[in-house]
Amino acid sequence: MLEKQHPVKAIGWAAWDPSAVLSPLKFSRRATRERDVQFKVLYCGICHSDLHLMKNELGFTTYPIIPGHEIVGVVTQVGSKVKKFKVGDKVGVGCMVGSCGECDQCVDDLENYCTKAIFTYNSVDTDGTITYGGYSNIMVADEHFIIRWPESMPLDKGAPLLCAGITTYSAMKYYYLNEPGLHLGVVGLGGLGHVAVRFAKAFDMKVTVISTSINKKAEAIQHFGVDSFIVSREPKEMQAAAGTLDGIIDTVAAVHPIEPLISLLKPHGKLVMLGVPDKPLELPVFPLLAGRKMVAGSLIGGVKETQEMIDFAAEHNVLPDVEVISMDYVNKAMERLAKGDVKYRFVIDIGKTLKA
Amino acid sequence: MLEKQHPVKAIGWAAWDPSAVLSPLKFSRRATRERDVQFKVLYCGICHSDLHLMKNELGFTTYPIIPGHEIVGVVTQVGSKVKKFKVGDKVGVGCMVGSCGECDQCVDDLENYCTKAIFTYNSVDTDGTITYGGYSNIMVADEHFIIRWPESMPLDKGAPLLCAGITTYSAMKYYYLNEPGLHLGVVGLGGLGHVAVRFAKAFDMKVTVISTSINKKAEAIQHFGVDSFIVSREPKEMQAAAGTLDGIIDTVAAVHPIEPLISLLKPHGKLVMLGVPDKPLELPVFPLLAGRKMVAGSLIGGVKETQEMIDFAAEHNVLPDVEVISMDYVNKAMERLAKGDVKYRFVIDIGKTLKA
Repeated sequence: MLEKQHPVKAIGWAAWDPSAVLSPLKFSRRATRERDVQFKVLYCGICHSDLHLMKNELGFTTYPIIPGHEIVGVVTQVGSKVKKFKVGDKVGVGCMVGSCGECDQCVDDLENYCTKAIFTYNSVDTDGTITYGGYSNIMVADEHFIIRWPESMPLDKGAPLLCAGITTYSAMKYYYLNEPGLHLGVVGLGGLGHVAVRFAKAFDMKVTVISTSINKKAEAIQHFGVDSFIVSREPKEMQAAAGTLDGIIDTVAAVHPIEPLISLLKPHGKLVMLGVPDKPLELPVFPLLAGRKMVAGSLIGGVKETQEMIDFAAEHNVLPDVEVISMDYVNKAMERLAKGDVKYRFVIDIGKTLKA
Repeated sequence: MLEKQHPVKAIGWAAWDPSAVLSPLKFSRRATRERDVQFKVLYCGICHSDLHLMKNELGFTTYPIIPGHEIVGVVTQVGSKVKKFKVGDKVGVGCMVGSCGECDQCVDDLENYCTKAIFTYNSVDTDGTITYGGYSNIMVADEHFIIRWPESMPLDKGAPLLCAGITTYSAMKYYYLNEPGLHLGVVGLGGLGHVAVRFAKAFDMKVTVISTSINKKAEAIQHFGVDSFIVSREPKEMQAAAGTLDGIIDTVAAVHPIEPLISLLKPHGKLVMLGVPDKPLELPVFPLLAGRKMVAGSLIGGVKETQEMIDFAAEHNVLPDVEVISMDYVNKAMERLAKGDVKYRFVIDIGKTLKA
């Protein structure tokens, strides 16, 4: 059925139920419309939300699900009215492939906050069919949602920027946590966290990593060049750093106490949440008042800002650390991801290893 | 002992223990120093935090406590180096009478966030003695903390602006919730809330009051001119208003759910807390991310901004609704305040009714 839904034959790897085991699936992509760009997928990053959605942890997964929203490749076909791209161009697609185009958010280039945004996978497209992501050999999307790939940016290493990159960059920029000399805390040195550190260094900021364990300390300092490292379970370390941070990017998706993080902020400091714990957190109100602090959120970023982010990353050599894997390693990779056993993002070599 | 601590004899009303019953107390004020302004107190507003502190609800009350931090009067003496004030001037003192003067916060005119701020009562002064507030016949403070009273501002009605006014004004300004045409929600139409409504109207904003009961609806619309009124316990009313507010000033000091309030915000909306519930609130994280929203706090305001606020209020006729009472009615007033039975702020006529 999925094989004949649309005219263009495609292959992907799908999960079929909450056991989240991926296996090959023949499906189809729509014919290239007049404003569409079709491209051969070469690499696709694995985002933690791929795993959440495969397991239906948010409760709205439609199976089979083909994940993947950090997708890069080479243009194979363009529609008659496409102006920005031509066959052979290197391109990318991030978390979205559509939005209403008319609401305040879309007009402000914030398609990510459009209530009718169409996400790259597990979303209902304008024709009523379900969208499928980048664990597949071919993609097609309206050119508005296609990112031009910078010449100097490696396709494999750069792929995770399309989600992890824009998520951290947009949050840092919106909350003015991108100014030289400011002191940024990053909670959790994982897929998002290590990219936040790289951007912060590119912005010429002072960076402190806050982590539950000391395990990553040496790597944080030697490899990522962070200025300091705090073990959040050590009250003395936390106390010594109280009131020193201008802002914190909190990438932790598990339920965790935020009062100790708020204590690390200077007056007027900002705690920006990028992860989504599945239960409400405890919010102490007095510390917010006493220091005029805020707890805030941010969700990926708009298309225009994604282009700006990737151009900035190319210019300033902001690159994720990735482990490139073959398509048939993906189930093992998911197991490792669930345990946090990855430095720091898996990227699937779709072009060479996704077999028909 | 308190009577002879300092050379200037004074009379006030003090609470002696957490039963919070006020009765007269002879005490003393320091001699006017070279940068001090001494003034005869004419009016003092009753703030809800007076009651909290009298009851030792925050755990750091020193008895006897003489409350009051919305104090206005007429200058009786100035020190030799005082430049801005002379005998006979109308002046006010708000929540603070001192700060370090050297930290980043003080340098930025944000004495209210100085960790060494000396509050108007129940605080340790530089000489080690306890500060006493405006339920008393005489005040003295460094001229830096003295507010010049605008000629057109009534002394009685204006007094509550020194706390309720600056608390709402500063929060609205800092979070950019003071722009014409923006739609502001105000949770709780009490001492702080009704002043927030008045400022919002002076800023030419659209205002919606959110309240647990319908009781105040007619008054909110007819007397305060708010644009709409939502009963927070009516899910249909809340749902109909979802996503309509640019920001919310939440004045409620009791534990209450904030997820419904976050739902009322437009994308990028701000929920600003001014009350301090005694337990942590439940913070749902996903709505913060999905709409790039924030939950934030704000605490009174600096001296410079307090002067700006009161000048603005005088110019735009922003006045609290007050019930002027005599000094010996204060215990009855506290009972009524605890029940929310006041429209909307008590002000004690100290000048005419505080007897020796």
